[in-house]
Amino acid sequence: MDIAARVMSVVSRTSTSEPTTSNTLNSQKIGKVMDVSDGAFIGGFIPSLIEKQRYPYSRPEFLYFSEEEIILSSDHSIRPVLCPRLPHRMPLYAGYAEVINAGKTIQNEDQSSAKMLVLSQHQGTEMNGLSDEKKVESRNGSEIDDEQMLTPGGDESEKSSLFAPRADAALFSLFDGHAGSAVAVVASKCLHEHVKSRLCEVLDTLLHMDRYENLNFGKRRSESSYSMSKMNEEDECQIHSEHLVKGALETAFLDMDEQISQDKQVWRLPGGCAVISVLVFLGKLYVANAGDCRAILVTSDGTKALSRDLTPASERKRLQELAYRNPELIGNSFSRLEYSKKLTRSDLKSRVLYRDWFMDGWAVKTVKEFDLRPPLISESSRKKRLLNTIGVSRGFGDHHLLTVDERLNIKPFLSAVPEITVTNLRDMNTLTDKDVVIVASDGLWDVLSNEDAGLIVRSTLGSTDSADSSRYTQAAQDLVAAARGQQASGNLKRWIMNSGGHASYDDITVFVIPLKYCAAPPTNFEEEEDDEMLSLE
Amino acid sequence: MDIAARVMSVVSRTSTSEPTTSNTLNSQKIGKVMDVSDGAFIGGFIPSLIEKQRYPYSRPEFLYFSEEEIILSSDHSIRPVLCPRLPHRMPLYAGYAEVINAGKTIQNEDQSSAKMLVLSQHQGTEMNGLSDEKKVESRNGSEIDDEQMLTPGGDESEKSSLFAPRADAALFSLFDGHAGSAVAVVASKCLHEHVKSRLCEVLDTLLHMDRYENLNFGKRRSESSYSMSKMNEEDECQIHSEHLVKGALETAFLDMDEQISQDKQVWRLPGGCAVISVLVFLGKLYVANAGDCRAILVTSDGTKALSRDLTPASERKRLQELAYRNPELIGNSFSRLEYSKKLTRSDLKSRVLYRDWFMDGWAVKTVKEFDLRPPLISESSRKKRLLNTIGVSRGFGDHHLLTVDERLNIKPFLSAVPEITVTNLRDMNTLTDKDVVIVASDGLWDVLSNEDAGLIVRSTLGSTDSADSSRYTQAAQDLVAAARGQQASGNLKRWIMNSGGHASYDDITVFVIPLKYCAAPPTNFEEEEDDEMLSLE
Repeated sequence: MDIAARVMSVVSRTSTSEPTTSNTLNSQKIGKVMDVSDGAFIGGFIPSLIEKQRYPYSRPEFLYFSEEEIILSSDHSIRPVLCPRLPHRMPLYAGYAEVINAGKTIQNEDQSSAKMLVLSQHQGTEMNGLSDEKKVESRNGSEIDDEQMLTPGGDESEKSSLFAPRADAALFSLFDGHAGSAVAVVASKCLHEHVKSRLCEVLDTLLHMDRYENLNFGKRRSESSYSMSKMNEEDECQIHSEHLVKGALETAFLDMDEQISQDKQVWRLPGGCAVISVLVFLGKLYVANAGDCRAILVTSDGTKALSRDLTPASERKRLQELAYRNPELIGNSFSRLEYSKKLTRSDLKSRVLYRDWFMDGWAVKTVKEFDLRPPLISESSRKKRLLNTIGVSRGFGDHHLLTVDERLNIKPFLSAVPEITVTNLRDMNTLTDKDVVIVASDGLWDVLSNEDAGLIVRSTLGSTDSADSSRYTQAAQDLVAAARGQQASGNLKRWIMNSGGHASYDDITVFVIPLKYCAAPPTNFEEEEDDEMLSLE
Repeated sequence: MDIAARVMSVVSRTSTSEPTTSNTLNSQKIGKVMDVSDGAFIGGFIPSLIEKQRYPYSRPEFLYFSEEEIILSSDHSIRPVLCPRLPHRMPLYAGYAEVINAGKTIQNEDQSSAKMLVLSQHQGTEMNGLSDEKKVESRNGSEIDDEQMLTPGGDESEKSSLFAPRADAALFSLFDGHAGSAVAVVASKCLHEHVKSRLCEVLDTLLHMDRYENLNFGKRRSESSYSMSKMNEEDECQIHSEHLVKGALETAFLDMDEQISQDKQVWRLPGGCAVISVLVFLGKLYVANAGDCRAILVTSDGTKALSRDLTPASERKRLQELAYRNPELIGNSFSRLEYSKKLTRSDLKSRVLYRDWFMDGWAVKTVKEFDLRPPLISESSRKKRLLNTIGVSRGFGDHHLLTVDERLNIKPFLSAVPEITVTNLRDMNTLTDKDVVIVASDGLWDVLSNEDAGLIVRSTLGSTDSADSSRYTQAAQDLVAAARGQQASGNLKRWIMNSGGHASYDDITVFVIPLKYCAAPPTNFEEEEDDEMLSLE
């Protein structure tokens, strides 16, 4: 079946609610936070920024939807599953599907991007396509610039002769916005440019190392360290090409967050977003995660998580330590400690188990008055929340997000630093066309286990023709449809899964990336032309 | 062979150097640090503390050595291997051996302790045997006290009826001092009391949980959570007995460091020490590590590390992040970044790979003037060092240690927080009398691999009678002798191993703990009486 046609037939159904593309106050509030860069909250502060948006709300370019279709697709009562109109043009034939929430926010706060990156060393010295962009000059107190070529070994002469400094990579990113969708939109338009720029900075060295490592593949574990063996500089430490790719992703994530911070001085960018990126480069799969989206590997061996959910629950120690070292961050409103139970006044002077920033174990204390404050990390709606509000602990944006009551800044706790895992596709046994990586927002993982998601995808791929380039999108669509479920017959506001349990009321977004094409991507991609042709800029 | 006799015959050989038990200035200096609580450095500051020591320098009580023997044993030119005079009285028949360094410091800066802990809930409310001790009241801003019984489920009545609130544990600790031995000595006298006190605080609940978990042993993975099932309080989180033991160790380590900080106001306590503790309790083995000592498991399956060396190398990100958040800690003397090579003035304006606090990967930058400062973590004598001086990043003490040049405080970087691993002896297949845990200071691990150490121990145990209670001490002795090596014939200052390589010039200390007695310890221990009889206090 033609998926694009199927999607469009759903999209064209009449909408009963009244979705709009403009931001409203509702979409900027989450729990009890406010964004002080938003004039509406504090009466006249930077009022000129209110409606000034660098990128209007939209859906991913690769869907090839018109603005009218985008509006029609945002029907909270129908929740149509959207897929790319031209699945064969997706980078590496990756599948994609998305669905809007059941009314939580007017807009779909998930965003995504899928890009082929054509890398060359010289190209890295400027940032293409980003009008306001400038290189971050003094982040963290150390000036970074990229005017010069990297010459780690000191010998510039062999550079151009040994290698054509050019390589292709594919980057899939998913952004789950909160307190508005603006930051997710900007990140979906710009992150790949930061990654490209950082990769280009070190491309020459990186390709050199990669070639060397491949030559020494057999003895790789013991003695193929590029710098030790090739460069033979006594105090040089062991660095592999993989480290340069990781470094490029790490710095690019901070570049992106810094850009948002600077853009906020000009544009209206409330809230923030969680982010996950999958970079396919030189036979390896890099998953960089900063938030609660998740990537899993699905092969005939079963499923394996490629990222760790970074939330107030999993990052308790980091968040508590920050509050310990900078007590002013939680003022007198919160208690830094975690308690074994919710404390009330009747617990005063009784003993309770607790743990502090340095503890994996639990110890005992007598409940004092200050223990009755809400804890730094609390639970509401079955989710651990930071400062009583936000449910993620990493991502982009949130630079001006404050708690409403004591105006505590949320940002110091949120971090744009990604955790990165690397999967070497060369190390894997023969890849089949049913081996994939699933990347999805928490809307999916809230209701599907890794194993359930793996089974659904394997089932879809098992029943589709291997020559059909839309089969991975069909798998993504089946995943999204399973997590969204169906409307209950008696209650149109209730969504239930096939199993009978609650379906996901959140925005749901899914990539299904076939490993076969990651290991050996086609050399010429149609997408590049299309990107240019259809660019919104 | 009678080990005690063997050791004493070595000890009684004439000493050629002139060891002394009094501290000298040399022993308080390491690299370029000074201790500002030491009057000699800053002319008259707290001069009354200079010779005031709470515990004089000595060797572990369980060696049963006279003061004269201790002096004779400290011969740097002979380096006799010392073992307990009465190996059968060691807790759990653990083996032990030590040797002094080859002249690095006058005293042996390694210290150790081995104790049986008799625990009962009420006993925990006072700290026995520590004259100056008082409970830490307001560490980290949260007041902890222990006047009351813990009643997590609210039902106090069943407490004494269900359980005799008493249990035995064994604690082996090893302390590797730096910039003096005073802190290592104090810690060896006091740490076990802090651990005991913290365990007693939660003993009742802990035994309750342990009993419950054992009843549910078969279904342990899924549903034996004590608090969820037994206490049935809806907002109670899942806590197991293991978590309470870990919490007791974690808080006890900080208690110990806090005690040293307070003792420093009265006593002379220069420098600090790395520390590792092995707690054997309720069928589990807890290894709490804060420094570069190491514990490994040796079974017929081979060796397995039970701790991770915590050094400036392994803790780079933590140390860099601290300097990033508090730049004043490194002033203008150091650069926070790690570089791929040692930079000199000729590298100015060239490009270099670097990594910062948030990076596992490497990125590129142009070398600026401030990059020429020595890095926060540098390498000297084939060891990564913090602030150009100290080679460990965790442990006790160092509260007044400053760099000599810019008087930067070392302490904020050093942490007393332990990393803890847990080994469940119940989960292990049948234990034999050749299965052991080796705990040793870096003096051993600098020259022996985990595998080498395992082979030496298995070899010794394979050739000794299983009825000989001194065989584990003999194994420890063989380990120490292997690492110390022999004096080169032509050069008495050179120590070489059997392999021909450099032997260890450092202090070397080793415990060999038999797992068989950890899993099922004898119920009555002779040591308790002896401890009292021979106590130095």
